[in-house]
Amino acid sequence: MAKMMRAAIFVEPGRIELADKPIPDVGPNDALIRITTTTICGTDIHILKGEYPVAKGLTIGHEPVGVIEKLGSAVQGYQEGQRVIAGAICPNFNSYAAQDGVASQDGSYLTADGRCGCHGYKATAGWRFGNLIDGTQAEYVLVPDAQANLAPIPDGLTDEQVLMCPDIMSTGFKGAENANIRIGDTVVIFAQGPIGLCATAGARLLGATTIIAVDGNDHRLDIARQMGADITFNFRNCDVVEEVMKLTGGRGADSSIEALGTQKTFSQSLQVLKPGGTLSSLGVYSEDLSIPLGAFAAGLGDHRINTALCPGGKERMRRLMNVVASNRLDLGILVTHEYGLDDIVEAYDLFANQRDGVLKIAIKP
Amino acid sequence: MAKMMRAAIFVEPGRIELADKPIPDVGPNDALIRITTTTICGTDIHILKGEYPVAKGLTIGHEPVGVIEKLGSAVQGYQEGQRVIAGAICPNFNSYAAQDGVASQDGSYLTADGRCGCHGYKATAGWRFGNLIDGTQAEYVLVPDAQANLAPIPDGLTDEQVLMCPDIMSTGFKGAENANIRIGDTVVIFAQGPIGLCATAGARLLGATTIIAVDGNDHRLDIARQMGADITFNFRNCDVVEEVMKLTGGRGADSSIEALGTQKTFSQSLQVLKPGGTLSSLGVYSEDLSIPLGAFAAGLGDHRINTALCPGGKERMRRLMNVVASNRLDLGILVTHEYGLDDIVEAYDLFANQRDGVLKIAIKP
Amino acid sequence: MAKMMRAAIFVEPGRIELADKPIPDVGPNDALIRITTTTICGTDIHILKGEYPVAKGLTIGHEPVGVIEKLGSAVQGYQEGQRVIAGAICPNFNSYAAQDGVASQDGSYLTADGRCGCHGYKATAGWRFGNLIDGTQAEYVLVPDAQANLAPIPDGLTDEQVLMCPDIMSTGFKGAENANIRIGDTVVIFAQGPIGLCATAGARLLGATTIIAVDGNDHRLDIARQMGADITFNFRNCDVVEEVMKLTGGRGADSSIEALGTQKTFSQSLQVLKPGGTLSSLGVYSEDLSIPLGAFAAGLGDHRINTALCPGGKERMRRLMNVVASNRLDLGILVTHEYGLDDIVEAYDLFANQRDGVLKIAIKP
Amino acid sequence: MAKMMRAAIFVEPGRIELADKPIPDVGPNDALIRITTTTICGTDIHILKGEYPVAKGLTIGHEPVGVIEKLGSAVQGYQEGQRVIAGAICPNFNSYAAQDGVASQDGSYLTADGRCGCHGYKATAGWRFGNLIDGTQAEYVLVPDAQANLAPIPDGLTDEQVLMCPDIMSTGFKGAENANIRIGDTVVIFAQGPIGLCATAGARLLGATTIIAVDGNDHRLDIARQMGADITFNFRNCDVVEEVMKLTGGRGADSSIEALGTQKTFSQSLQVLKPGGTLSSLGVYSEDLSIPLGAFAAGLGDHRINTALCPGGKERMRRLMNVVASNRLDLGILVTHEYGLDDIVEAYDLFANQRDGVLKIAIKP
Repeated sequence: MAKMMRAAIFVEPGRIELADKPIPDVGPNDALIRITTTTICGTDIHILKGEYPVAKGLTIGHEPVGVIEKLGSAVQGYQEGQRVIAGAICPNFNSYAAQDGVASQDGSYLTADGRCGCHGYKATAGWRFGNLIDGTQAEYVLVPDAQANLAPIPDGLTDEQVLMCPDIMSTGFKGAENANIRIGDTVVIFAQGPIGLCATAGARLLGATTIIAVDGNDHRLDIARQMGADITFNFRNCDVVEEVMKLTGGRGADSSIEALGTQKTFSQSLQVLKPGGTLSSLGVYSEDLSIPLGAFAAGLGDHRINTALCPGGKERMRRLMNVVASNRLDLGILVTHEYGLDDIVEAYDLFANQRDGVLKIAIKP
Repeated sequence: MAKMMRAAIFVEPGRIELADKPIPDVGPNDALIRITTTTICGTDIHILKGEYPVAKGLTIGHEPVGVIEKLGSAVQGYQEGQRVIAGAICPNFNSYAAQDGVASQDGSYLTADGRCGCHGYKATAGWRFGNLIDGTQAEYVLVPDAQANLAPIPDGLTDEQVLMCPDIMSTGFKGAENANIRIGDTVVIFAQGPIGLCATAGARLLGATTIIAVDGNDHRLDIARQMGADITFNFRNCDVVEEVMKLTGGRGADSSIEALGTQKTFSQSLQVLKPGGTLSSLGVYSEDLSIPLGAFAAGLGDHRINTALCPGGKERMRRLMNVVASNRLDLGILVTHEYGLDDIVEAYDLFANQRDGVLKIAIKP
Repeated sequence: MAKMMRAAIFVEPGRIELADKPIPDVGPNDALIRITTTTICGTDIHILKGEYPVAKGLTIGHEPVGVIEKLGSAVQGYQEGQRVIAGAICPNFNSYAAQDGVASQDGSYLTADGRCGCHGYKATAGWRFGNLIDGTQAEYVLVPDAQANLAPIPDGLTDEQVLMCPDIMSTGFKGAENANIRIGDTVVIFAQGPIGLCATAGARLLGATTIIAVDGNDHRLDIARQMGADITFNFRNCDVVEEVMKLTGGRGADSSIEALGTQKTFSQSLQVLKPGGTLSSLGVYSEDLSIPLGAFAAGLGDHRINTALCPGGKERMRRLMNVVASNRLDLGILVTHEYGLDDIVEAYDLFANQRDGVLKIAIKP
Repeated sequence: MAKMMRAAIFVEPGRIELADKPIPDVGPNDALIRITTTTICGTDIHILKGEYPVAKGLTIGHEPVGVIEKLGSAVQGYQEGQRVIAGAICPNFNSYAAQDGVASQDGSYLTADGRCGCHGYKATAGWRFGNLIDGTQAEYVLVPDAQANLAPIPDGLTDEQVLMCPDIMSTGFKGAENANIRIGDTVVIFAQGPIGLCATAGARLLGATTIIAVDGNDHRLDIARQMGADITFNFRNCDVVEEVMKLTGGRGADSSIEALGTQKTFSQSLQVLKPGGTLSSLGVYSEDLSIPLGAFAAGLGDHRINTALCPGGKERMRRLMNVVASNRLDLGILVTHEYGLDDIVEAYDLFANQRDGVLKIAIKP
């Protein structure tokens, strides 16, 4: 009989609960990871609320830090007992989409049981943990395509130091990478939640020299300054678009990063741009977006709008952990709370209601 | 007393008329060109209808083919009598915007009298002829920043052969260049007016191998096939999005080019894309655009939306004329009618009402 | 007892012979392909002569066209009996190198028996067939990482039509892609052997408008014109560098493609360039190269030198076969001879001595 | 009669001396700048030694910091009395080369008297000050194409703070920009003179996380650490290539920057690279370079070799001064000495012989 483990599963809208599930079998290209630390993401709250549909009974969570428990027969170059992470997006790098440069949009595996649906592309289908297959808020998680996705943790780094790499650091940095930043650029980052803060840090890392962080919460703006912002605007106290135009002498910003997912911040992200500027969008929107005609120069402004899903894969994770190991950035500051897996329902409640200054919660099975 | 010339000027909404205007003086960086051929653009129709505001009395037109009549004292390397063209967009390449890679968005000169408004960026302000300064539907036109903008016509090319270079060929090709085309791509081009046809030709030139042209007019679709389309869809007879999905086995196109400027074609341009695809937008929109949430994958589809204004400058014109000289493309086929400048009011009427299968009209002063 | 097959193996310098070998076993990520057509490459001649070392007894050849005989247990989305090709370079797309954008330099598998040597990079180690593992000049070949490397042949294409895709078309096109070609460029391609001819075709496909092909053989220059060259120079009759400078009015070419692998053509590839130009190198050199100081502007000329190994993978193959299916290019013209596998020693002799106008030979097991 | 000024002129090999020259006349596109601070560059030492030929009597120097004394009649948007800098490379942005993306290779002006030689490209001809026209080691300098090249100094920055922008900061940063740096990269910078130090700072600014600085002088390696190096190697004490390979687990560096101009450092720059890596070359070489075959993978390693000449123009200068104003970098540390213009011969002697730990000297007319 299969051995059992504890896992946080989606029961129905409003209910994520702990349950016992069998520890999964390990196929030739899989690896079984014993989770030592994971976390809760904003997306999980959408799942909890029923706003993002997943299968009933699915284990939630997509940010694995742990230890290799068992390797599939075809997985080479790792040892059981090794500490690893894997990206929140865990693609099949053998797919057409991956070879075409958009691994996150890999449509190879579409079903919760790992069956192969098609071999083309499917938007966001590279996101499998806690979406298409069982996720990481559990004692164990099965990592598919383990050869491509297992990234060994460098000696000397703690779980907390690498906990942000699988998702928000990869996402926030991608937002900065998508902003076409060049040395000397002015960049405006809208919203300073965990992903926006990482986008701010990413803009700093890539050579922007006037980094403007926007939020409505002064505490988050303080952290934004620690992450590399030169200037912060609290949108409750000023007209952000006007302030950016004043600051740039009417030129506008070289790029903007939208890290919230609302019409208002999307519009402002376009309005602060110079003609020829780039809007890098990270937000998950919930309705059709409107592009304001004037800021869009009626379509003649040489604008760029770039969207992204978090990149995954072991090489991406290796690079992000190198950023941490090289002391370029300390994201430990974002981990404000810690809970055992057994108390995850309570952790969800805290996080969903954004109480107690919570940014990110470490979950320890 | 200044010598006079004939010019087509904007009088008021609904009226563009011929008038006598003084032949302009030539400043140190200018060149005076005697127009031998010019044409009417869709934008001119917007001006005629009062939909796009220009100063009353301004000479209209932005596609110059002619002969150098007089060179400014600081302009070097040209001779009077030389046959030249200049781009419809005629930027100041000394501007910050030009050095920053977006010459078309150069805000150096903002006023009809050539005075320097500011030194930053201003959307579309690189378009000066027939917009901020007197245009080309006249016996003579003054080319500012002539050193940067005068492009000698290679021996052996006729006026008609290079007449499309200043605007629609540069614009249409930019649409293809902005589509991130790689060898083996599938590209869908929406609308096969003169610019869409050039975008189709540009996609062919850049290595797309499944080129799908869309229009509601079978005659234009015939021409699209001559311009390089592999497949054509008349949107009156089929559901274009569905057909593209069928043709690509559900994968979607690598990129799409919107060459009309309507909500419907913009939405479809996004709907035909694979996740990770690029929407290259050329249309001039007249109201806020809506981005359909599903096709946009809620912001998570690794999509690109790129807009453009026609690139100008002598190097751009040199390259486009080289395309013609190398027999890669014959755009003469697009010049369906010819009028003398004296009959330009009649030509406007024909073009505005799209009678008689008109695509482009050669105007001969 | 294992079933046996015929295979062309390397015996010792000067000797490639037919031998009986066991048909290989199929691991979970492998596929066994029954070869219907393959070919001999210039590299195979280097192996034959002992200039490029491979293990004694190794099956030679790296250009597979065939039918799936048997699929590994973990390979999904294909059927036995399906017609497929695979790239000459057959990388592990799960490797760090592949995720880092240089799949051809994948060092995951370094040994002929498929054991994993390391997980880093090793120059050219993505080339496995007929180099690190048994190759394609046999009745059957085992394709590793089959999920990533098997590319179904579109209906209606013959073996001969896709026989160039695995190697010379992918290589030659990569030479053109590495040349940073833009619309209106002048490109010079040195040497019009099979790879140079494909580079010429690639330059045409990517929008170069003055394509100059160089060789010492007029017949090959004739074929170059069919592949898209605008101008051809026989280096026996003229000074190529001087001619290019004359043709471009002293400006130089935008880019050059070296497709031979000699010091002389490498030097000339630099000498024909404009300052700011790109040298795309495809040649396999046999000794330290010298960069001529003057043509290199002492290091201050904003030059680019780009090298490449042939790209592989199913997405690359899909795109190349699409070029063929779209009638952009007919490489069948390059297949000048056909031999049965049993006569391969004779075919080697013909090809090594370049007799009878041979370009490429179809080998039929 | 023309007013006179003091200027450091090239007399003959071995002799640069102060002399009286007329203050130049100001043409319509020129600006006359009163120099407040300038400096001596390594290139000037080559001129002094007769290794780089310039016209006898030419004023030397190419790094202007000063005040606008007089503006040409066609130069707009500046005021006399304004503090400005201009790039060491001072291109004509109206040229074909500039519009083609390589302004530094602009061949518009080739002669010391400013006459127009041709309109094409000429390697390094964008470098005019102290090369083709009178330079900056004088009381006044005439800036050609002033509209494109004058960059106002932001309030609050001293001459010393911006003195490195015109040349070594622009050059060193370009070395980093040419290295294709991505987040998480390992970069090796060979030689830590002023330009190498700026390349090190540039690599840090662009997101490299393992930055390895190499030199034979421990003091310079100390400064390299202040500029952002993570690791330093003194080549006198170790085998640099071996150390880099050890440090990267045999993978090699993602890119290297050659900042000296010798065969040995060029070879090592290639030897430390991973397959697929980029060699960004800044050195000025004095003889044909040899490319070591093994490190070059015989031409099959997907390597990139990129060279550069310092970029100029007001937008580039604006961005670099913004880096300084944003406290990303303090290059004041590199200005180790100060001399009056009257003592410039003594300053040359100190700098040429690299006495007293000299890095850069501020020259004050």
